[in-house]
Amino acid sequence: MLIRATAALLAAAPAIAQSPPTAAQTDPAAAGLMQGSPVPAERQVRWDDGSMWIFPKTRWAFSNQQALVPTAPIAREGPVSPLPRALRTDLDAVAFTTLAGKPMTWGEAFDANYTDGIVVLHRGRIVYERYAGAFGPHGRHIAMSVTKSFVGTLAELLIHEGRLDEGRTVASYVPELAASGFGNATLRQLLDMRTAIAFSEDYAGQGLSDVNRMAFATGMAPSQPGFTGPTGNFAFAAGLGANGQHGGDFVYRTPNTMALQWVVERVGGAPLAAQMSERFWKPMGMEQDATLNVDRIGTAFGGGGLNAALLDMARFGEMIRKGGRWNGRQILPPAVVGAILSPGDAAAFANTKYPGIEGGSYSSQWWHRAGGQTMAVGVHGQGIYIDPKAELVIARFASHPIATNRAINPVTMPAYDAVAAKLSRR
Amino acid sequence: MLIRATAALLAAAPAIAQSPPTAAQTDPAAAGLMQGSPVPAERQVRWDDGSMWIFPKTRWAFSNQQALVPTAPIAREGPVSPLPRALRTDLDAVAFTTLAGKPMTWGEAFDANYTDGIVVLHRGRIVYERYAGAFGPHGRHIAMSVTKSFVGTLAELLIHEGRLDEGRTVASYVPELAASGFGNATLRQLLDMRTAIAFSEDYAGQGLSDVNRMAFATGMAPSQPGFTGPTGNFAFAAGLGANGQHGGDFVYRTPNTMALQWVVERVGGAPLAAQMSERFWKPMGMEQDATLNVDRIGTAFGGGGLNAALLDMARFGEMIRKGGRWNGRQILPPAVVGAILSPGDAAAFANTKYPGIEGGSYSSQWWHRAGGQTMAVGVHGQGIYIDPKAELVIARFASHPIATNRAINPVTMPAYDAVAAKLSRR
Repeated sequence: MLIRATAALLAAAPAIAQSPPTAAQTDPAAAGLMQGSPVPAERQVRWDDGSMWIFPKTRWAFSNQQALVPTAPIAREGPVSPLPRALRTDLDAVAFTTLAGKPMTWGEAFDANYTDGIVVLHRGRIVYERYAGAFGPHGRHIAMSVTKSFVGTLAELLIHEGRLDEGRTVASYVPELAASGFGNATLRQLLDMRTAIAFSEDYAGQGLSDVNRMAFATGMAPSQPGFTGPTGNFAFAAGLGANGQHGGDFVYRTPNTMALQWVVERVGGAPLAAQMSERFWKPMGMEQDATLNVDRIGTAFGGGGLNAALLDMARFGEMIRKGGRWNGRQILPPAVVGAILSPGDAAAFANTKYPGIEGGSYSSQWWHRAGGQTMAVGVHGQGIYIDPKAELVIARFASHPIATNRAINPVTMPAYDAVAAKLSRR
Repeated sequence: MLIRATAALLAAAPAIAQSPPTAAQTDPAAAGLMQGSPVPAERQVRWDDGSMWIFPKTRWAFSNQQALVPTAPIAREGPVSPLPRALRTDLDAVAFTTLAGKPMTWGEAFDANYTDGIVVLHRGRIVYERYAGAFGPHGRHIAMSVTKSFVGTLAELLIHEGRLDEGRTVASYVPELAASGFGNATLRQLLDMRTAIAFSEDYAGQGLSDVNRMAFATGMAPSQPGFTGPTGNFAFAAGLGANGQHGGDFVYRTPNTMALQWVVERVGGAPLAAQMSERFWKPMGMEQDATLNVDRIGTAFGGGGLNAALLDMARFGEMIRKGGRWNGRQILPPAVVGAILSPGDAAAFANTKYPGIEGGSYSSQWWHRAGGQTMAVGVHGQGIYIDPKAELVIARFASHPIATNRAINPVTMPAYDAVAAKLSRR
């Protein structure tokens, strides 16, 4: 069943890459996904057959993870912190040219990117807010690898507090990782994804590929009878070997974050959900509880399992843009904000060739563009975008048929640049 | 795996019935259940090995269903409706004699019943409130068959609105049930559990017993390769045959509620979670979202899958005690409240021999004692208790090692009576 589910999951992207149906053609409400008592077979979105990961059923599943898999709550509390609105009607007409050379407007980009929700904050006020698909202002959408940036921020907090030393080895914090490829990597190498781990983040792999094995371990795919691989996110990370010398170029590998999460949980003394609640959701006055997808033994998937309200993602970005201050409190010390907003080693990033991020870098589980913008990025179009110069924060959830943002950035990056320019012009 | 999980689940109660460890000995925090990064094997509470249903791991699992199984949210909104406190310190000393003849105090009954949370409302004010185990005021605890009373209340609402006719057959509303044992039963027979269905609610059955098959269909237990039984709550109900004539004595069978839920969803035009949100959680100003455990195709388990805050259970009971009015709104019309609070056919109940409910009855998915009290009741000690004469409402969650309330009522019923007498005396 693992093979079936993950093969289905992974076969989907190549199959539809040529000419996928449009956002309008895959509207989950119009398609009646998960409607009916009971839901007819063709409209079902399920975990146990892998269909929750297959486009266009992802268009429902990405907004409804709690109904599909077990989740750990990230509790909020107290009054909701205000996010004033000053909506502008002139942004939909903002024109730009995609990196593929196609003219497009901001309004058109919404559907072109299969956007489920997007909010633009300019100088702290909501100037644009739009929802579609199975998502809405009261929903929670999976943030995919945007989750990693929260784990990285917690690690930077622990470094700032002197509880973590970025120069020490991973094994010195988590002895269970000593025999793995991570053991002799430094925490900094983990944070910046400059480890040499025998893992290929290839979403087109077949059978028991690395990504498929990870899908089983994390609980994303159902168990397979007779499968003897690791159970649990941490056990999966502990089972990965080395493949060269640490400290080389940036290579995007999700297990780095799984190992980092393990360090953060061990040193922070609490599960990821509890730390995110105490550090961010409660003091920031988030408007909704968030959730984290968990594996079969309750470990959260810090590599990509966060589900949250769109405006709470915007609050997190705006808090960072404002130097760590939000809701009348200093959520992050300025030094941590500095660590997040500062670019990493551009030379280590130079060979990645991500469209629209030329000259950029990756550090502390955050992405940096050459223009000074910092981003949390997740597959299928998830993101938090912080542009300090333009006093701009954008949060977006999407269910694009293609996983990699290499296919999505050619629309996203020039669209964001055009809106930043428009908002800065007045 | 189904066999393993459900056999483990079902074997637990008889094995520990003789002399189970006490509440203090099974405190989930002291036992370190689900603590650690990752959680060590002996402390894990899991769905896929059935341990979540085995005492004492239930002491954690009953308060953390969302982290174990997929759940549908029941959304609240707006300001929280107030529940004033007028705490009394004299209740713990209230003495009574259990139906087994043992002297006990109210305070002692808390642990004797493995209580996770209990709140007593007298004349609308909280006079007693106490939590333990893995539960607390901000948690959600599984309500087990207390869930059924919510389904029954929705059905009574639809009857009052003329959308359901209690004299019509089940098949006239849900044609898919026509060939099942439920098909020619009336809605009233379903509501009062007076159908003759080939299903034994025997929690000590082995192998592919009725309860084990239900556990698979509802997703309570993991799938078994090669298992060809029904998938989904509704499919399970549709697969049950008849066993005699409807309209006889009350016999407690959970599938009645699964069929009733199907009628309520079909006629109400929305899934159970949405109807509970719109009818109760939003207008009543509940303080927390609730959740419903769902099967593999997203159908809620209306037979027992509600997870909620204790005080929200108390609000629901108090709303009924106050004639359906709560939070400045008429939540239930007086006629529906009358239907809920009125006893059913005592003769049909006479042979059940539930301790402490002698002379009682069951109607519209609610239980009635001879003294005029109305109860929502779930296995392992869950309950909402409404005593109009004493102006009393009690909500309780527990994780008693024994499922049936036949084993729990001998403490509960005289304890409730003693507190009612104490509160009425002043």
